[in-house]
Amino acid sequence: MTGSYEFTERGSAEQVEEGAKLAPKFDADGLVTCVTTDAASGELLMVAHMNAEAFARTIESGEAWYFSRSRRKLWRKGETSGHVQRVTDMRIDCDQDAVWIKVEQAGAGACHTGRRSCFYRGVPLGKAPDKSLVLEFREDKAFDPKKVYGAKE
Amino acid sequence: MTGSYEFTERGSAEQVEEGAKLAPKFDADGLVTCVTTDAASGELLMVAHMNAEAFARTIESGEAWYFSRSRRKLWRKGETSGHVQRVTDMRIDCDQDAVWIKVEQAGAGACHTGRRSCFYRGVPLGKAPDKSLVLEFREDKAFDPKKVYGAKE
Repeated sequence: MTGSYEFTERGSAEQVEEGAKLAPKFDADGLVTCVTTDAASGELLMVAHMNAEAFARTIESGEAWYFSRSRRKLWRKGETSGHVQRVTDMRIDCDQDAVWIKVEQAGAGACHTGRRSCFYRGVPLGKAPDKSLVLEFREDKAFDPKKVYGAKE
Repeated sequence: MTGSYEFTERGSAEQVEEGAKLAPKFDADGLVTCVTTDAASGELLMVAHMNAEAFARTIESGEAWYFSRSRRKLWRKGETSGHVQRVTDMRIDCDQDAVWIKVEQAGAGACHTGRRSCFYRGVPLGKAPDKSLVLEFREDKAFDPKKVYGAKE
């Protein structure tokens, strides 16, 4: 990123919810939640997090940047896999602690396990869950993660 | 909820990602992230959180239950507004710290501000954000929150 960035300070609930100023609420770890959907199909691809820099880089570049909580580092989606995400629309929610990006997903998928979406298993409904609950696989692998990542993304 | 509930203990990454056992990863506050979309339109309605009980109640009842971080309490969506959410599909992500529910939204909307979706403002892309950034309103109010909630939900 070439430029510097600056968000608006948070004001009253009314200002945050009904105003036109970008005043994100970063949590105690400095993160907002990001929901990423496929711009064409509307499918939910992944849920991840952005720190202020990832958020600003996404806005500036129009490509998805995240902050990896497990690796504790800024992460340009696709930097290892080539599976970059071009952002076609970005939204922020009422209290400005979650963002929604619609993306054109390069490559076969978004999930490090080799699926298109991270949400490849269904949870059966209708009874209180116990250890006998069996998740339902809804999606096959779209690529071989070992070939794409070498090491895990 | 009438029954008790019990999740599977978390095992290796391979077990969590490729297995058929429900082993949610609750964060330090005991929560998973929940993404809620409209079953018919695919639109993102809201992002909220579930503790173990809200998660289990949602699975058992097929209606959305959340945990309100601001009010620190279990929250049946629609308990004040009547805007309940019937779950048509529930998914869990690769590392089992986020769930996706598709819902039939009762009433005019999901957002406490009176909109259908919480994501009613767009963030303009293409330059590093500063205080001059102007959010773009994309959605009108669908109901009067004062009439529906009395007090804020």
